[in-house]
Amino acid sequence: MSFKTTATISSFGGKLLKLTHEAKSTSCTMALNLYLPPTTQKKIPVLFYLAGLTCTGDNGAEKGFFQSAASQKGIAIVFPDTSPRGLKIEGEDESYDFGSGAGFYLDATRAPWSSGYKMQTYITSELPSALYSAFPELDSSRVSITGHSMGGHGALTLFLKNPGMYKSVSAFAPICNPSKCPWGEKAFGGYLEGKEEWAGHDATELIKGWKGGFDALIDVGTGDNFYKQGQLLPENFRDACVESGKKGLVMRFQDVSSSFPRG
Amino acid sequence: MSFKTTATISSFGGKLLKLTHEAKSTSCTMALNLYLPPTTQKKIPVLFYLAGLTCTGDNGAEKGFFQSAASQKGIAIVFPDTSPRGLKIEGEDESYDFGSGAGFYLDATRAPWSSGYKMQTYITSELPSALYSAFPELDSSRVSITGHSMGGHGALTLFLKNPGMYKSVSAFAPICNPSKCPWGEKAFGGYLEGKEEWAGHDATELIKGWKGGFDALIDVGTGDNFYKQGQLLPENFRDACVESGKKGLVMRFQDVSSSFPRG
Repeated sequence: MSFKTTATISSFGGKLLKLTHEAKSTSCTMALNLYLPPTTQKKIPVLFYLAGLTCTGDNGAEKGFFQSAASQKGIAIVFPDTSPRGLKIEGEDESYDFGSGAGFYLDATRAPWSSGYKMQTYITSELPSALYSAFPELDSSRVSITGHSMGGHGALTLFLKNPGMYKSVSAFAPICNPSKCPWGEKAFGGYLEGKEEWAGHDATELIKGWKGGFDALIDVGTGDNFYKQGQLLPENFRDACVESGKKGLVMRFQDVSSSFPRG
Repeated sequence: MSFKTTATISSFGGKLLKLTHEAKSTSCTMALNLYLPPTTQKKIPVLFYLAGLTCTGDNGAEKGFFQSAASQKGIAIVFPDTSPRGLKIEGEDESYDFGSGAGFYLDATRAPWSSGYKMQTYITSELPSALYSAFPELDSSRVSITGHSMGGHGALTLFLKNPGMYKSVSAFAPICNPSKCPWGEKAFGGYLEGKEEWAGHDATELIKGWKGGFDALIDVGTGDNFYKQGQLLPENFRDACVESGKKGLVMRFQDVSSSFPRG
């Protein structure tokens, strides 16, 4: 489970490592980026950033603009890939929203996807175990999770499925109620054996069974075409929090036209 | 000379505009990015960022990580393209280091390139005129220039060719002595009619005739493969500064292996 370092890039006083490793859960070589901040801490807290549809671990690292803040705060960031690659499953490269680049951070139960589409196990178990072993400066007791779009769905659901695993959760334009949006219906219908499994991978359903408070930031741009098309449905998640008595959620709607005074 | 705004993206409290306009100097539609910071200033200082070989105006805007600092300092950034596009000149798309994506920020004198490869006129005259007209909040009296690799060559040479036009110049891994490196020899040989023109587009030659001090920052990574291959030749520029008595240059060599304590 050791990593191969394919590049080391200086970034805001720290370094961005481009890594690959052989993953059992996904039955393939997985690539990722790891940002290590400059720090004098012995143990570095870790943030997992889960990317969205069509992305790899490179998108956030190259375009996310948050190494700067991570450097200042002394936080390591893990940027994993969004699916297995090259499993030679028929149709895996046909759609932008299913198969390669679209693993939805769950463990598939329907064949043939169940043979390697195990992103939940990869992200919550195999990858972190491998990282904490290879990089002992990472603090496995202070780990948080965030993500964008499909990765926001991943962050919310993996947080809710694994009480205590993550110190915090946040999400940027997350898919909040996949059982009720076209992307989610396609993914869950394809990856999961039965419809009774869907609720177990849907943040809006999972939050109802969550015990205790739920301090989380969800940020949504109102100009986002996928929000407007009903792929994200953040209001459904907010309503589920309110109806089930969860306090602490901050849902921030960003209105592009009003956020900048020049209009 | 008006601009069409193809996208408006919120960025660090300001906005990134994706623009296109019809340019006479380059005989084609040119695309660029313009970052406008959040500011209460009536007039916003402007930084031109010139990109390197193979790039467009998108590379710096998407991966440059400097909108954050520009937002804090209240600086607008112009990210122009690196060449004309689609002129249908034979061979324009054959090389990564000549033609499309490789305009070298000069006005070509050799046919057929002389018909549209006029990036010097575009960057120093047509584009700024159009921008200051369309965006009157930009302060045309406070303009600086920087760039990377081929764009660093562009920043240094356009600064040196146009005394007083720019308040400051800096460059990241610039091509410093193109007359003596393979990239420059190919570009100058292709774009310029005669070899006697080369010195007029070579920072290491131009600096010798520069009057006064030369306060500039040049940053070079010693692990940069193009530096190691002799494409950048920053030492030649530094030596020319020293030999011609120019003071103020800061040439900063970044050693990747020593810049990060973990090694």
